[in-house]
Amino acid sequence: MKILVLGAAGMIGRKLIERLLSEGTLRGSPITAIYAFDIVEAAVSSTDDIAVTKQAGDISDAPTVAAMVGTRPDVIFHLAAIVSGEAEADFEKGYRINLDGTQNLFNAIIEERDYCPRVVYASSIAVFGAPFPERIGDEFHTTPLTSYGTQKAIGELLLADYTRKGHMDGVGLRLPTIVVRPGAPNAAASGFFSNIIREPLAGEPAILPVSDDVLHWVASPRSAIGFCLHAANMDGEKIGPRRNLTMPGLAITVGEMITALGKVAGPAAVERIERREDPTIVAIVANWPRQFDASRALGLGFVSETRFEDVIQAHIDDELGGKLPA
Amino acid sequence: MKILVLGAAGMIGRKLIERLLSEGTLRGSPITAIYAFDIVEAAVSSTDDIAVTKQAGDISDAPTVAAMVGTRPDVIFHLAAIVSGEAEADFEKGYRINLDGTQNLFNAIIEERDYCPRVVYASSIAVFGAPFPERIGDEFHTTPLTSYGTQKAIGELLLADYTRKGHMDGVGLRLPTIVVRPGAPNAAASGFFSNIIREPLAGEPAILPVSDDVLHWVASPRSAIGFCLHAANMDGEKIGPRRNLTMPGLAITVGEMITALGKVAGPAAVERIERREDPTIVAIVANWPRQFDASRALGLGFVSETRFEDVIQAHIDDELGGKLPA
Repeated sequence: MKILVLGAAGMIGRKLIERLLSEGTLRGSPITAIYAFDIVEAAVSSTDDIAVTKQAGDISDAPTVAAMVGTRPDVIFHLAAIVSGEAEADFEKGYRINLDGTQNLFNAIIEERDYCPRVVYASSIAVFGAPFPERIGDEFHTTPLTSYGTQKAIGELLLADYTRKGHMDGVGLRLPTIVVRPGAPNAAASGFFSNIIREPLAGEPAILPVSDDVLHWVASPRSAIGFCLHAANMDGEKIGPRRNLTMPGLAITVGEMITALGKVAGPAAVERIERREDPTIVAIVANWPRQFDASRALGLGFVSETRFEDVIQAHIDDELGGKLPA
Repeated sequence: MKILVLGAAGMIGRKLIERLLSEGTLRGSPITAIYAFDIVEAAVSSTDDIAVTKQAGDISDAPTVAAMVGTRPDVIFHLAAIVSGEAEADFEKGYRINLDGTQNLFNAIIEERDYCPRVVYASSIAVFGAPFPERIGDEFHTTPLTSYGTQKAIGELLLADYTRKGHMDGVGLRLPTIVVRPGAPNAAASGFFSNIIREPLAGEPAILPVSDDVLHWVASPRSAIGFCLHAANMDGEKIGPRRNLTMPGLAITVGEMITALGKVAGPAAVERIERREDPTIVAIVANWPRQFDASRALGLGFVSETRFEDVIQAHIDDELGGKLPA
């Protein structure tokens, strides 16, 4: 079992590789090699059983992508992307990496004859654009209001068509906003959803730039890795021709998140959150989807947290060694 | 007012140019030049007032497209495409013409600075894939089951995003099946919808390969030209960010079409239709959408026939000089 991870240095890529190394198998077979690709070298290492090859490069360079695909990995995780804010600020770069890069990957797969890898593609709820119904169902149209969402929606269409024609065996995952993101506070508009949990847990202050009644759709990094593994392992026949799935998540208000933080970490943690409204972020967030009916994915066995306390506990277990700082 | 028509030699392109020449104006301004582009030279000619420039070429050649766009047309009609059957049979060619060609056009527009033409893009109800609701509404997702439908759906996404970013002023039109197509009987799976009307009207036999209860979504060539002109003339601000519109049409069964034929042309015409079921065509047609709720387009002023007798009469007026052959 050989695995290629594109976007290996990102938060999901790194955690996915760590999990693959600890599991040791995928699709019922022992993992022998992991090829870790990103624009910078990923901070992952080989184990006694699994050779990890790291490469830094640009997915928009077709020969680079063809060489990787030429190693004929059994499973490809395509997590590489220019994120939303940068794709919006740099139109050309967003299309070059997110669209041309994805086409480079899919076309390199066609060029390998007698080859049909499972491709797990990280899409996003950014494929949806306001106005929305109260809950977005599996048949709601994709009318993105960002270039990033547009590029992800196009990737979904290509994935479904290349799969339908037998060129690959793709599964697209529309990921919720991932909370709690580890690491330093993030300047992304969605960063505060993580900041208001991660920073107070670490004894640090955090700013809440929106009102408590903002409702959002979230899942933990642990759930995101679980989605990727389940998408790699599952029987593709069961999915049918609609290969792109809205992942399950938790619809929760900021106020409910803070209440859960208080239950897990006590009132002192809650007091570290300062409410300071930012009209720019308020306006951006107003256009985001809030809640989904992820029936198809749930029916296909994808699972996520149902209580936000579990999202917080996953962060404490996975990032803080299982306990709160004294 | 300078106009570029890509796909000028096709049925819609040719009729559109004839109509533009006879109207003489678009968006309230006199038309001075029409640039007619297609893979073969279009059978259209200049008038005293309007210079028609014909060019045969390949839309997948970026410099060719850039040179055309460099003439800075005020309105661009992008009707050029490899049709459904060919795009399905030749995967590479379909993507090269329908996707790369469309990207060449849109990117050439960006390269022209201080330029934001109205772009009218011919999409298709092929962007939808079964299973469908009984009536497909304006918010139903696009999950095409052909490469052609995939390429059209991607073009829609690009059109909306490039328009949102102010690079062009696009309107996408999801055209119904066009009936009655003039010319020789067509081998396309949908050809029989036109054949069973056009051939009997001309005193010729026609074969009906499906049962009388097949329901389909149709509009006349005259309506299709009307959609294009309305899309060129309308106020783009009224459309909002969802720039792709399902065009109105007429949901009608084959049996009802034949009844209308009898009313217009008498029982002798109906008797020229031979029922000979073709299981291949029956299977293809079973996956086609049947009926739409085109509320948005109707609200924006797009109109089509509401009686099939009018579709037949449009054919008699436009193709048969207004009367049936003796």
